Amino acid sequence: MVEVKASLKEQYNHLFAAVPPAAIREIDVKLSSVPDIIKLTIGEPDLPAPTAVKEAVKAAIDHDDSHYAPSQGTLALRQAVAKYLQERYDAPAYDPESEISITVGASEAIHDAFSSLFNQGETILIPTPAFSLYQAEALRLGLKVVEVNTAPTYKFTAAMFKQALQDHPEIKGMILNFPGNPTGVTYEPAELEKLAAAIGESDVLVLSDEIYAELSYENKHRSLTSYLPAQTILITGLSKSHALTGYRLGFVAGPAALMKQIGLAHSGVVTTAPSPMMAGALAAVTTAKDAPFAMRDIYQKRRDLVMDGLKKAGFTAPTPNGAFYVFAKIPDFFTADDHAFVYELGEKAHVGTIPGSVFGAGGEGHIRISYAASTEDLTEAMSRIQAYSQRAQDLKQKNLA
Amino acid sequence: MVEVKASLKEQYNHLFAAVPPAAIREIDVKLSSVPDIIKLTIGEPDLPAPTAVKEAVKAAIDHDDSHYAPSQGTLALRQAVAKYLQERYDAPAYDPESEISITVGASEAIHDAFSSLFNQGETILIPTPAFSLYQAEALRLGLKVVEVNTAPTYKFTAAMFKQALQDHPEIKGMILNFPGNPTGVTYEPAELEKLAAAIGESDVLVLSDEIYAELSYENKHRSLTSYLPAQTILITGLSKSHALTGYRLGFVAGPAALMKQIGLAHSGVVTTAPSPMMAGALAAVTTAKDAPFAMRDIYQKRRDLVMDGLKKAGFTAPTPNGAFYVFAKIPDFFTADDHAFVYELGEKAHVGTIPGSVFGAGGEGHIRISYAASTEDLTEAMSRIQAYSQRAQDLKQKNLA
Repeated sequence: MVEVKASLKEQYNHLFAAVPPAAIREIDVKLSSVPDIIKLTIGEPDLPAPTAVKEAVKAAIDHDDSHYAPSQGTLALRQAVAKYLQERYDAPAYDPESEISITVGASEAIHDAFSSLFNQGETILIPTPAFSLYQAEALRLGLKVVEVNTAPTYKFTAAMFKQALQDHPEIKGMILNFPGNPTGVTYEPAELEKLAAAIGESDVLVLSDEIYAELSYENKHRSLTSYLPAQTILITGLSKSHALTGYRLGFVAGPAALMKQIGLAHSGVVTTAPSPMMAGALAAVTTAKDAPFAMRDIYQKRRDLVMDGLKKAGFTAPTPNGAFYVFAKIPDFFTADDHAFVYELGEKAHVGTIPGSVFGAGGEGHIRISYAASTEDLTEAMSRIQAYSQRAQDLKQKNLA
Repeated sequence: MVEVKASLKEQYNHLFAAVPPAAIREIDVKLSSVPDIIKLTIGEPDLPAPTAVKEAVKAAIDHDDSHYAPSQGTLALRQAVAKYLQERYDAPAYDPESEISITVGASEAIHDAFSSLFNQGETILIPTPAFSLYQAEALRLGLKVVEVNTAPTYKFTAAMFKQALQDHPEIKGMILNFPGNPTGVTYEPAELEKLAAAIGESDVLVLSDEIYAELSYENKHRSLTSYLPAQTILITGLSKSHALTGYRLGFVAGPAALMKQIGLAHSGVVTTAPSPMMAGALAAVTTAKDAPFAMRDIYQKRRDLVMDGLKKAGFTAPTPNGAFYVFAKIPDFFTADDHAFVYELGEKAHVGTIPGSVFGAGGEGHIRISYAASTEDLTEAMSRIQAYSQRAQDLKQKNLA
């Protein structure tokens, strides 16, 4: 243990102090101390990595692929990613040499885009409820954030966009995430087209986080870049589609002029992504490019299991058409304070969830349930929630009587 | 290819425009077009990764270690790194849980430390010649930079520090790098002790980049943190010591109060380092912890080969006591313009080097030669430089006659 010099205790970036702590991980850690708890907290696939990906990384290691790769990623990978994004995302034909970078997860892509495309003091719009990293990173970088509450549909509409721009003409950029975390909501093609048209009338630059694209249940995912290529940066990666969270592989694509700046941020921050992992990514978007379909089918069955289980327990939630989260309204017979409810549910029913208010305006009174967990765990968790719900209702009935 | 919307061409962080382009990679790319060139440009080990490290990564992949690790790294790795830094760096006993983070290379550690510990507009001191990333990252983050020219000894002294602080009392931080890139110079214990004492009298926070520590030829490396733990952040990693550049494994350690901020930057930027790579890092600092000794002996022989060859060609350079670079003065019978000379040497002698001036004040009129290349290549490169040098001297003689 090393004590810092007393006079240096305040020597840090004071923008960092304005950022709320990373609530999801903090809550996850607290709930972990409850014995026998089933945690449906973290958005992390429980499935193993595709075999072809694993073999490709191991082969790269055997072949001493331990040297620096080109900063923006190996050309072979960028070419394959360009093709994959066209096929699977309906993305435009990005130039692999100047319009695609490989990052250390989508997180790094988000950081690089925020830090390189916006100036300190500029304003970005975040539709909420949203993944809390967006706001945290934006604030740490000195950006201003305008939240737009999308409840109860959780769809950000053209009308909402126009209203926000009228209220805040200083908005320079926005982040859109679909299928969305924490709600699982995604867009119909007509909705997305309308939204793209409204954004296209403005000069607002969009970061489109489509990391859950491959986990779209009803329709094939269609990227915002297919409607609005000239003012959209596409952010995605393999963490969710291929169950590769720990491999840290992200992709970012957009017009060359903007990608040049993102590439500078990327090479400054990490130099390049790990070479053997990029060999794995190449396998993921070529030989293992269909692996997400099987995973999606598994998640869809789990979604149905959870939706059914929650309904029986008295919860309501919009049916997720993508990702692996249910964003459920806490029934009236429980406390409406979602933080209190999450700890109550954790301690008394031994099921871990995330309070909705950590995702911003529109999240209060809700919980997020991740169904990236085994069917067995999900079945047991639903029984526990139902039993706990029944007890609460009985108690309320008794008190009223 | 996607055209950016015309009105968005200027939508980027204007701090980025003030940063000179990454000269080393740019020059490297240009020289690569010369047929038959021997490139002594990039600071990248040509040696393979230690077998124990490779096997550990492969085993992690086989065991489906494909999930998120704790943000600051696995505890087992942080514990092993704490021990390793004590043994090999004479570092203080850092608390693995609050004083060590695992980053994506030392680059990310540098970025995280700059971004989290300093506020936009604050001033940092960089002794030059220095690795050009320091200045680039600092400028992109909106920091001000004071350069202190350390030529001709390339040692930053207590007197230089005091003078700089007198001239620029606004200095909040500095970066020290030893053994140094591009000069290979490192410190005697007495020199470092004096420098540490001078810094200790001030409130200047030091980022000590000791990535070449294990490649110290004469004396065992001793970290600045052994003299000045309360105001130093130690930055290092496995890229140079274990020939693992492409695995992107960095370590950052310091007092908990400061590491808390660095950890926030790290989790925001990349969430966590790749899990299988961390399994490799654990092997590197335990079972393969002696691998750097054999590599160091190889580099030392190459250093002697290069110093001898350059001397015969009329170059002078301080003998490097660490790292794998020689920083040589261009002889008078050549042009003193180091950029022009590097292209001349590349095109006419087919040897690639880096112009000294890209490393800042004190670098002009010099070239950096990386001897992280095969003995065969180094031998041939020295012959070529000697022959080219002889021709230049003959020509000069002829012109004078």
